Amino acid sequence: MSSSSNKPILVVAGVGNGHGTGASTAREFTKAGYRVALIARNAESLSALADEINNANGDAQAFPVTAYDHSTLHATFAAIRAHWPGAPLRVAVWNAGDAVWKPFLDITPEDVQKVSDTNVVGSFAFAREAILAFQDLELDEVGKRGALIFTSATAALRGNKTTSAFAAGKFALRALSQSLAKEFGPKNIHVSTAIIDGGILTDRSKARLGDKFDAYVKNEDVRLSPDSIAKSYLYLANQDRSAWTWELDLRPAHETW
Amino acid sequence: MSSSSNKPILVVAGVGNGHGTGASTAREFTKAGYRVALIARNAESLSALADEINNANGDAQAFPVTAYDHSTLHATFAAIRAHWPGAPLRVAVWNAGDAVWKPFLDITPEDVQKVSDTNVVGSFAFAREAILAFQDLELDEVGKRGALIFTSATAALRGNKTTSAFAAGKFALRALSQSLAKEFGPKNIHVSTAIIDGGILTDRSKARLGDKFDAYVKNEDVRLSPDSIAKSYLYLANQDRSAWTWELDLRPAHETW
Amino acid sequence: MSSSSNKPILVVAGVGNGHGTGASTAREFTKAGYRVALIARNAESLSALADEINNANGDAQAFPVTAYDHSTLHATFAAIRAHWPGAPLRVAVWNAGDAVWKPFLDITPEDVQKVSDTNVVGSFAFAREAILAFQDLELDEVGKRGALIFTSATAALRGNKTTSAFAAGKFALRALSQSLAKEFGPKNIHVSTAIIDGGILTDRSKARLGDKFDAYVKNEDVRLSPDSIAKSYLYLANQDRSAWTWELDLRPAHETW
Amino acid sequence: MSSSSNKPILVVAGVGNGHGTGASTAREFTKAGYRVALIARNAESLSALADEINNANGDAQAFPVTAYDHSTLHATFAAIRAHWPGAPLRVAVWNAGDAVWKPFLDITPEDVQKVSDTNVVGSFAFAREAILAFQDLELDEVGKRGALIFTSATAALRGNKTTSAFAAGKFALRALSQSLAKEFGPKNIHVSTAIIDGGILTDRSKARLGDKFDAYVKNEDVRLSPDSIAKSYLYLANQDRSAWTWELDLRPAHETW
Repeated sequence: MSSSSNKPILVVAGVGNGHGTGASTAREFTKAGYRVALIARNAESLSALADEINNANGDAQAFPVTAYDHSTLHATFAAIRAHWPGAPLRVAVWNAGDAVWKPFLDITPEDVQKVSDTNVVGSFAFAREAILAFQDLELDEVGKRGALIFTSATAALRGNKTTSAFAAGKFALRALSQSLAKEFGPKNIHVSTAIIDGGILTDRSKARLGDKFDAYVKNEDVRLSPDSIAKSYLYLANQDRSAWTWELDLRPAHETW
Repeated sequence: MSSSSNKPILVVAGVGNGHGTGASTAREFTKAGYRVALIARNAESLSALADEINNANGDAQAFPVTAYDHSTLHATFAAIRAHWPGAPLRVAVWNAGDAVWKPFLDITPEDVQKVSDTNVVGSFAFAREAILAFQDLELDEVGKRGALIFTSATAALRGNKTTSAFAAGKFALRALSQSLAKEFGPKNIHVSTAIIDGGILTDRSKARLGDKFDAYVKNEDVRLSPDSIAKSYLYLANQDRSAWTWELDLRPAHETW
Repeated sequence: MSSSSNKPILVVAGVGNGHGTGASTAREFTKAGYRVALIARNAESLSALADEINNANGDAQAFPVTAYDHSTLHATFAAIRAHWPGAPLRVAVWNAGDAVWKPFLDITPEDVQKVSDTNVVGSFAFAREAILAFQDLELDEVGKRGALIFTSATAALRGNKTTSAFAAGKFALRALSQSLAKEFGPKNIHVSTAIIDGGILTDRSKARLGDKFDAYVKNEDVRLSPDSIAKSYLYLANQDRSAWTWELDLRPAHETW
Repeated sequence: MSSSSNKPILVVAGVGNGHGTGASTAREFTKAGYRVALIARNAESLSALADEINNANGDAQAFPVTAYDHSTLHATFAAIRAHWPGAPLRVAVWNAGDAVWKPFLDITPEDVQKVSDTNVVGSFAFAREAILAFQDLELDEVGKRGALIFTSATAALRGNKTTSAFAAGKFALRALSQSLAKEFGPKNIHVSTAIIDGGILTDRSKARLGDKFDAYVKNEDVRLSPDSIAKSYLYLANQDRSAWTWELDLRPAHETW
């Protein structure tokens, strides 16, 4: 993509245990020539993913956090810049989030707080740092200062039984994403959202599905591959400034919706 | 509506200074035979509104709160039941909310916290208490255990420049409202939302408009009357179980949208 | 409502066999003091409904049509004005429509034409005549020249398997309704839509349900009553100009959605 | 992509004068190894585009039509198959449509008919032929029998003043697209829609903008390039079956929305 000194940085928050969307995004952007800054709460799997990428000739660094709040993320972005001085931070992917699926009367104040902390407080803080990082960069070759991408879900589009808490968080995230897309498009900062509509193939699926896991892995028509999601993020990051997408949905071919 | 002992209770949270939607709702339901429990953070204007209603032969009681959190609202609903023992709590209106309209980079962590506290934490706690109060009641004459109504805004439907924080809160509220409508309709609890799309005539308009306030008052085509909004809430509360509305929008005739 | 000479006129198109939404609307507005002009393709049941209303001291007239096209509807509205000279035509309800529910590959060119004829050609022609009738009237007591109400369905909000033709018609109708609401609100003409989400209790239900019909009639939680829908139309027509609704949804309490 | 005999076919309907989205799509898919069947009502510019592509070592054929109706499109798809016997028809792009932007009362019955003919009758007929062509094909390397892509517009999402006719057509098209995506996803036929939100740079822009055209050409932030739209269509066609997009929006970076 460019000489080593100005290889761009991808920041991805929410990397889970290294088998989901965040990890695939890190790998896909590594292949496309990005340095990758990995943010997550699980320091151990974060470190394992960084090692994996570095062993494959990538340039990854783990930035574990204890919480997604304003001061933590501010310090983390400062650490990212310090780690690769002068390298342009071009893409930021917000992939964090806790799924709370419960009948409404079972939802605890702690559940509500968690939804609010990640999807509102955390996403606002992450978006702020990303936009601050982008805004002084020169336009890249497709006319962008930077790309901020949110991973979202169908619960961002409609509430349902047992999704009151989850949907509240995802609706809020969508509002943030749309507001930012409108406010920062004119500054050549591209904000977009992927609405994931369906189950994603991760090793969590393994725990959930037991014996049926092998069939699930083989049947590409019924579950999303994290690698395919990651490809869509690279596509979004590469869209030129004449035709930007704010929101796209992604679902397996056989999904009922 | 019924004998004194079982006159129903309306609870309305977010009464402001007595000139807005919350206050008009209290007056409209008083006329329709309800007792009214008034919840707000401003104890003084709350008390003035209760006095006004009581002096006009209504039955109102002020329940000031310091914050809209789980334990405060739990205690407040207990106090409401204790104030009118045996009376059925039939309608709950969530009208609280802080409008934060700022360019994204001017939004502080405190702003984000405020949005989250009221629109997520507060609305979840209020809804919980309302539904707990409704669920053991007998059906009323229109086939309802109770009606929970949320005041919302156009910002619940789309984010915009300078609305990232406000819209995040209103989107979250809409998710909650839709999820609850789907979960509790089968239990004959009616959950609905009014999307207010336009300026509401309150004495805050006076401060904002200065010399133009008189013309604004007179021109019913350009601003919402809180009394008209309150009438729509009574209409929603009275809808029979064969045809319930989840969401309606309300705007002045000449509003551009 | 007013002296006989200026009793307002309701026009309702799509009256079916006298047991559905159109007929209930005619009865409800009759009770509210309106003259009712009944338009439908079935001359016989139209005439029976007019008789029923007239026998109950209403003032109804049947205007059978062979098709919902521009010239037919133009002539029909002229006939309505001629029948009640000088009376203000204040409310127009478009309730016509054919439900085509078929797997896509079973849809014939004739099906597509039917959808297009009623939902596009017919609704545009009806709306034109209504707006032409309203635009020169004085404002009524709630600040309106007239109210145009569309009956729509959930298929206006999302397409689904087997609804490609039906949804195309209802989506188109919704676009028309929203465009007109925005264009004619500033002229004090109120355009609104009711999204009916569920089965309506009519004698067609009887044919469909057979033995289960009696239980269906008795269970008000599972089907819409046409009378309840009609009440919502009267509510919409009576909204004052400070707070107009463009769209509301209506569904039975126990509907899954 | 593959040996000559089974090079796939793209069909694109609505090619205009060779400078818009349809033409760019034909060129983009040519580069990606497709044969291209060009359908439009303007035989002359259609033929010029086919020549251009063939002179650049592509394989294009013009199929002029007099109208977008069922029998014409049926015959056209038969002619396409006959022109390239045995070649798999893999991608169909519906890009036809007439923009009618008029105040409602200026819309003629002919305008309404035109909207209906193209957006309802035409799109249904085109979709039918595409799906019939796809359904018996083997899965391709990304797990698809075929991809049907609709060009749409912001008017598919909301009606506005002066867009009643245009929006009715685009809403209808969106309903069709969503219904088909749900019905045929399980058959590995991928249906998607691009919502174009902004002006597209074509030579029509030249006529419209006069002196300002040169600045418009140069400012990639304010208008969509047809080539960028075409790239998104190729991206959609290439999405693997684990993560399909139904709808994405496309707009220039500086567009106000």
